[in-house]
Amino acid sequence: MKTSLNVNWKSGMAFESEINGHKITIDAMEDNGGNDLGPRPKALMLLSLAGCTGMDVVSILKKMRVELDDFAIEVEADLTEEHPKQYNKMNVIYKFWGKDLPMDKIEKAVSLSDERYCGVSAVYKKAMEMTHEIRVNPER
Amino acid sequence: MKTSLNVNWKSGMAFESEINGHKITIDAMEDNGGNDLGPRPKALMLLSLAGCTGMDVVSILKKMRVELDDFAIEVEADLTEEHPKQYNKMNVIYKFWGKDLPMDKIEKAVSLSDERYCGVSAVYKKAMEMTHEIRVNPER
Repeated sequence: MKTSLNVNWKSGMAFESEINGHKITIDAMEDNGGNDLGPRPKALMLLSLAGCTGMDVVSILKKMRVELDDFAIEVEADLTEEHPKQYNKMNVIYKFWGKDLPMDKIEKAVSLSDERYCGVSAVYKKAMEMTHEIRVNPER
Repeated sequence: MKTSLNVNWKSGMAFESEINGHKITIDAMEDNGGNDLGPRPKALMLLSLAGCTGMDVVSILKKMRVELDDFAIEVEADLTEEHPKQYNKMNVIYKFWGKDLPMDKIEKAVSLSDERYCGVSAVYKKAMEMTHEIRVNPER
């Protein structure tokens, strides 16, 4: 399937795009010529990954009738020091909160996303080391 | 350098994150259990790329004292039909508008981003075919 995205320069280092009808502005910090009108672009790689796998896991657990009180994802990433400064390792920490959560179903949901459904991690895996952890009822 | 991002589940398929102090919500469409409160996560991979290379190019051309009337980036991407549905080819179209634009400097700026500075394309290149085109004063 072919898809495309248009991204328009606004001023300084700010760029704006409309994704699925939602406007997003990205910008650099002042010391890089920007005005901090939006987030830095590279970090969107982490949000893309967390959202992709997060939606998979929520959707699979719902089908398995697992009720969550809360759910969060933390993505830890290593960035190289040399140009081009790039992520070369990511660790996805899945955090689940709830009563009597079934560990087997949670592990199954995470595996299904990781191995079968998440198209973002599928790409990143070809470029770097990707690991993940599951934490049930961790401290806030 | 170590970095991390926290992404919190809100309800349904919606997730929220704060990147550099800017809140971004991502969500699925209604037919996938969402409420379309924000963009789909996968497309953020394209915005991340466009923003990264776009900021490089603007910044390099500014140093070269090239004045642009306008600038936009279109990212064309191919998505696989099979799970995990993933981008397997991207083409970045750089569009410049302005008077008497120096083609050599524009090509140099794009090459510097592509080969030396853009950490997002550096990652994607390891995972898929990446190409780019330069268009000067294309029709709107």
